[in-house]
Amino acid sequence: VDTLWLVNGERTGVDPADRGLAYGDGLFETMRAEHGTIARFAWHYDRLVEGCERLGFAAPARAVIETEIAAHLPRDRAATVKLIVTRGSGARGYRPPSEPRPTRVLCIAPWTPLPNEHYTRGIRVRTCATRLAENARLAGIKHLNRLEQVLAQREFSAAEAEQGLLLDASGRVVSGTSANVFAVTNARITTPDVSRCGIKGVMRRAVIAAAHELGLALTEGDLDPAALRMAEEIFVTNALVGIWPVAALDDRRLAVGPVTQRLMLHLRVGPYA
Amino acid sequence: VDTLWLVNGERTGVDPADRGLAYGDGLFETMRAEHGTIARFAWHYDRLVEGCERLGFAAPARAVIETEIAAHLPRDRAATVKLIVTRGSGARGYRPPSEPRPTRVLCIAPWTPLPNEHYTRGIRVRTCATRLAENARLAGIKHLNRLEQVLAQREFSAAEAEQGLLLDASGRVVSGTSANVFAVTNARITTPDVSRCGIKGVMRRAVIAAAHELGLALTEGDLDPAALRMAEEIFVTNALVGIWPVAALDDRRLAVGPVTQRLMLHLRVGPYA
Repeated sequence: VDTLWLVNGERTGVDPADRGLAYGDGLFETMRAEHGTIARFAWHYDRLVEGCERLGFAAPARAVIETEIAAHLPRDRAATVKLIVTRGSGARGYRPPSEPRPTRVLCIAPWTPLPNEHYTRGIRVRTCATRLAENARLAGIKHLNRLEQVLAQREFSAAEAEQGLLLDASGRVVSGTSANVFAVTNARITTPDVSRCGIKGVMRRAVIAAAHELGLALTEGDLDPAALRMAEEIFVTNALVGIWPVAALDDRRLAVGPVTQRLMLHLRVGPYA
Repeated sequence: VDTLWLVNGERTGVDPADRGLAYGDGLFETMRAEHGTIARFAWHYDRLVEGCERLGFAAPARAVIETEIAAHLPRDRAATVKLIVTRGSGARGYRPPSEPRPTRVLCIAPWTPLPNEHYTRGIRVRTCATRLAENARLAGIKHLNRLEQVLAQREFSAAEAEQGLLLDASGRVVSGTSANVFAVTNARITTPDVSRCGIKGVMRRAVIAAAHELGLALTEGDLDPAALRMAEEIFVTNALVGIWPVAALDDRRLAVGPVTQRLMLHLRVGPYA
């Protein structure tokens, strides 16, 4: 089973003049699909639209994206679906074209099974030295300027940890390298607000909604590394893994706690075969 | 006369899995060529190598780049040459491949003549609301994460100004949207240091060297907007335009001053036909 790449619906390369390549001038979504359906597609599309609005160009119509995905998504097995939307090709220089024609890059790849014990025992998280710079205009959206994440990921090997922990320039906790982070202390859940840097994860949104449904107290706000270290439970989330309990944050060991388990159960998160 | 694009030496598209597109995981150089020669190629290559080192992959050999450019550069007229070097294709996820195979994207375009009066009377600069976030690990190099510049450029039209003025998160002057900036006060030149954000421009390097040769005092350091506004002369530099005097910074008017003129003469900067 191969990975399929489509550029504006065609099996072709990307125009070398595309602004996505030149400046990271675009957005992306990474989605989990099962039985021919993308989990929480509406929320992925919401975030894509917000990102396009923030950058100042029109998102492709939802129907265009849905039709393109539906035409190629396997019905009988899980898949990872990645969509990149850029402002399209342009003349040299930062100034965007007055009438951009956005580029869609769609990737449908076979699902890579994740280890069971990441759900049952938890993952290892390691604090990174690379910091996230703060820029409210770019915070929250999933844009293509991701060198900070790349540099942070280079700080440790896959054998050492499953996620890096990223702090902002002021030393506050923001997120994992590719996941949002939640701390549970005295039965209260805290997740960093992402108005200065970080990404408004789709699974983060699902957890916030789930906490509300379950009557669990949840705050989006500042989280400092000392408070995170003292937390009774820590978990991370993203659209591909769902929820992963954290078993180790640097040298601190944690058990999978009851709040994390309730949320995993409520959201039917588990090992995705 | 057409624009030529080459991806690893071939007239083809870019692999949609390229990390340059996915994450802006790469560098670029924009260069001016005349009579088949690229101005200050050694310094462009220096900066590219430093950028690759900072991101953690090997730059293409200088001979590879020089040979490729020489094979296609017109001998009889000026050209704009843009080179993008990315970490190449990779699997999904921020973690770079252990043995990256960098991608080269080369663009050779006909030179676009610049208006004479930009050299003789100067240009208009407009202070942007978009700020540059500070991250020492990414400062100075010409990486592909340029959304801040794109957003800043969108704040004004080409009819309103030739450059935007960018401040960092702390409110210090950093640069123009696509140029370095210099202020002259009491015969002393100041240019913002670019250790927290901004780019170490090749023409900036040439001006620093020229000031040294001419015995002009030049400091790389903090420059606040009020000090810039009070300056007797302001000029901006980049590898394509050389030096442009600033005739207007927002509502402040300036004349082309003697220090700017000396540097332009010394560096043989003028209208490039």
